[in-house]
Amino acid sequence: MMTSHLYTLENNVFAGFVFYTVLLLMKMLLMTVLTTTKRQIHKAFHSPEDTSRAGTNPEARKKSLLPNENVERVRRCHRNDMENIYLFIFLSLLYIATDPPYAMAIWYFRVYTVSRFLHMLVYLNGIGQPFRGLTFAAGYVTCWILAISTLLSIV
Amino acid sequence: MMTSHLYTLENNVFAGFVFYTVLLLMKMLLMTVLTTTKRQIHKAFHSPEDTSRAGTNPEARKKSLLPNENVERVRRCHRNDMENIYLFIFLSLLYIATDPPYAMAIWYFRVYTVSRFLHMLVYLNGIGQPFRGLTFAAGYVTCWILAISTLLSIV
Amino acid sequence: MMTSHLYTLENNVFAGFVFYTVLLLMKMLLMTVLTTTKRQIHKAFHSPEDTSRAGTNPEARKKSLLPNENVERVRRCHRNDMENIYLFIFLSLLYIATDPPYAMAIWYFRVYTVSRFLHMLVYLNGIGQPFRGLTFAAGYVTCWILAISTLLSIV
Repeated sequence: MMTSHLYTLENNVFAGFVFYTVLLLMKMLLMTVLTTTKRQIHKAFHSPEDTSRAGTNPEARKKSLLPNENVERVRRCHRNDMENIYLFIFLSLLYIATDPPYAMAIWYFRVYTVSRFLHMLVYLNGIGQPFRGLTFAAGYVTCWILAISTLLSIV
Repeated sequence: MMTSHLYTLENNVFAGFVFYTVLLLMKMLLMTVLTTTKRQIHKAFHSPEDTSRAGTNPEARKKSLLPNENVERVRRCHRNDMENIYLFIFLSLLYIATDPPYAMAIWYFRVYTVSRFLHMLVYLNGIGQPFRGLTFAAGYVTCWILAISTLLSIV
Repeated sequence: MMTSHLYTLENNVFAGFVFYTVLLLMKMLLMTVLTTTKRQIHKAFHSPEDTSRAGTNPEARKKSLLPNENVERVRRCHRNDMENIYLFIFLSLLYIATDPPYAMAIWYFRVYTVSRFLHMLVYLNGIGQPFRGLTFAAGYVTCWILAISTLLSIV
């Protein structure tokens, strides 16, 4: 068995992983600007040194430090990404070590990526259940499949 | 020196890393369901669109958006995992690049994994000091050892 | 094309990545102790079982669970690291797969590392804009460059 090519772009599974992971990470980079933008629009800040942008009125400045639902929603969505997308990337990296069949692996990556983009749209627009749960579950189940497949391959 | 086999399952250190990391990531996957379960049990939600599950009374709905200690405890434990387990995985990946002796590496992975499972049990059950500190410290010190070993090997 | 050496220390790009990433991760390890230290100094805790360190007075104990700006500032900075440094490490790992020129890659790693250390100093000391924004932006733009370079290399 010659497996030292696994983490190279010559391995189609890894190339597919790189492609979908870059998309997911670019999505996460956008979350950062979205938070900042919302903070500016809604004059809702986190650190006292930022409140000068809420004006010169000390009352308005103090108020600008209170949590604002428009900002908090983006932050919740962003934290959800950290809890899930980072985990998916790690699991995929381990899964690739088991040299999985391309046809299977690529579908896991696709389903996961689509599920996370949909989850973001649903979450940011405040669309309730069952949509947020379903988009979340698709990605979540994919993670379990990656974890269990990897475990079964190595024990 | 031929080191292109390092990130393959033929390398026992990497195989051990894959095994313990899958366990740690599965633990983190469980934290997600645990948060959701606690939210349902304690009727404590984060997003206004979820409050319909707290009933039709507008007061009860509003109250369901307040932080609930049972939910927040799981979320703190989950955040602690993100601050620590992700960091451990990265450090281990770098450490493996230095081709460390198996007998040493595998013990770092074992101690870390056990310490994080114990830390979770201690944290979720509200067991105070010194137990939470000790379980935390075991993993924390392991991370420093991985970091410094890696640094000494490459400079 | 023979690329199975990419993730080995024989590849200068990877060796540089390992060096700067260890520095960034050690910085993050320090954030953890900093939070704990600030909690002790300001008697501000997160979990009810820790409040015994705020004394025996039940009122003082209750008060010690309220958010304390000195602690929260470190936690915000730490979360910012999780949102950004983890993302940078993943993007760099993918970028290395494209076998980039050393002279370019090493500067991305350097700029990113310096920007995050400065960002931390600026944030923890409550230095306002434009400094926090500038130190943040340097790292943020680097991430986009890594993401887009990787994407262009593989499609």
